[in-house]
Amino acid sequence: MRLRMGVAYDGTGFSGWAVQPDRRSVAGVLGEALGRLFREYDGLTVAGRTDAGVHATGQVCHVDVPDDAWVRVASARGAAAPDPTVAVRRLAGVLPPDVRVHAVTPVDPRFDARFSAFRRRYEYRITDDPAGPTPLRRYDTLGWPRTLDTAAMADAARGLLGEHDFAAYCRRKDNATTIRELQRLDVVRGDVITVSVAADAFCQAMVRSLVGALLAVGEGRRTVPWPGGLLTRTERASEVTVAPAHGLSLVGVDYPTDPAEWAARDAATRRRRDET
Amino acid sequence: MRLRMGVAYDGTGFSGWAVQPDRRSVAGVLGEALGRLFREYDGLTVAGRTDAGVHATGQVCHVDVPDDAWVRVASARGAAAPDPTVAVRRLAGVLPPDVRVHAVTPVDPRFDARFSAFRRRYEYRITDDPAGPTPLRRYDTLGWPRTLDTAAMADAARGLLGEHDFAAYCRRKDNATTIRELQRLDVVRGDVITVSVAADAFCQAMVRSLVGALLAVGEGRRTVPWPGGLLTRTERASEVTVAPAHGLSLVGVDYPTDPAEWAARDAATRRRRDET
Repeated sequence: MRLRMGVAYDGTGFSGWAVQPDRRSVAGVLGEALGRLFREYDGLTVAGRTDAGVHATGQVCHVDVPDDAWVRVASARGAAAPDPTVAVRRLAGVLPPDVRVHAVTPVDPRFDARFSAFRRRYEYRITDDPAGPTPLRRYDTLGWPRTLDTAAMADAARGLLGEHDFAAYCRRKDNATTIRELQRLDVVRGDVITVSVAADAFCQAMVRSLVGALLAVGEGRRTVPWPGGLLTRTERASEVTVAPAHGLSLVGVDYPTDPAEWAARDAATRRRRDET
Repeated sequence: MRLRMGVAYDGTGFSGWAVQPDRRSVAGVLGEALGRLFREYDGLTVAGRTDAGVHATGQVCHVDVPDDAWVRVASARGAAAPDPTVAVRRLAGVLPPDVRVHAVTPVDPRFDARFSAFRRRYEYRITDDPAGPTPLRRYDTLGWPRTLDTAAMADAARGLLGEHDFAAYCRRKDNATTIRELQRLDVVRGDVITVSVAADAFCQAMVRSLVGALLAVGEGRRTVPWPGGLLTRTERASEVTVAPAHGLSLVGVDYPTDPAEWAARDAATRRRRDET
């Protein structure tokens, strides 16, 4: 039985999604909870391998559990059929409060949280208020000490849209491609400044590098065309500062509605790992 | 020089607003910051004396500082005149991240943060999602383990509006009056269930007692008329559970726009202390 899970976490207390020896990871904590409830599970796979300190409200993963374990975990006492809400409630009972599984759905085994996804969406929260971030949102909002010109940031963002080699904005990993299709990069000033980003996938530290470049434009250290100009580079641009992790949240992952397309994502997308 | 300050805090790490021996209080932390910047200050007074664990986004207080200290703290290097934004930035530099002063305004000395206020506004956040509160909002959202009937809660809330003796909902303090005018008590289900409350002032634990009574209605333990029926009591009703502090935030305080009315709040209001 393959299960699709919607996951949210506060990245503050984690070394990131991926399991690492002697570090507290989201996959480690979630795996421990799955083990306690289902006893056996296999192939826990995530849509976006978030870095240390990055949060998620709309993370998606999948896992395989034995059919009888699913029936046992998802069935209320005396109920005739499994109910996913029962599984959600039981997971809440064994997870720490900084990780929540807000939805569990039995899903066609062609569904792959990583390879079936065609879009990842992130948000980065910034405030340039001289008072700094409001206390209750200080864990997911970057305080910026100087006033930001968000119109200039939005202009600069438009120069980055489309399919490009984002090598300048990536931490290079072995020989993986750094070509990605940036579908959205909006900068909107409301209560805070929200940078909304979407792409088919992101290479490591890409969202935070894009935000770092826009911040340099916003405070006038760089010109509006500068971030787009870096797209001609074939290596990481050392002038680009990687913005701190705690402003960043994975807010959603999009999948085709037709299960027939879940296994059919093309080879290019498969090579584009998402590791934000 | 009297200063009006807008203050926000994460109540998690505080024993409440009021200074207490050997406890970390908001007034204590804020007073220490004011002392560091202004050296002398006097009469730090708050609109709503929040209890331990209660948050604020729109708290208001006032303080008196020497005129020359204000000019020194609020003047940028080489500037001709004080600029409140400079004071906000300097306060941010000496305050811990769980307290922020987001606005400082020199104000007519008739302004009194406590006695000039004619309305305090609070919000209480609850989720009955089986997954519990989303991790990044777990510090200011109460997770409720059973589904809540918010329509019944809203109906019950209407029975509490108006000027009443809220003795049933107050922790009695010496001989202070427990008559208050409840101007708003709305229950709205969105991403979370938000209870929005406004009154001229609140007695101690009143908002959390009102929310506790509505929760009993929401889960069907009590009938819709029950909370309103308790208004005939002249003493605290032990059947009313006080909801946990961490769901509650003081979101705003309202003052007359005309300074002539600041000193003229009537004696009844003066006797109605706000101690939520």
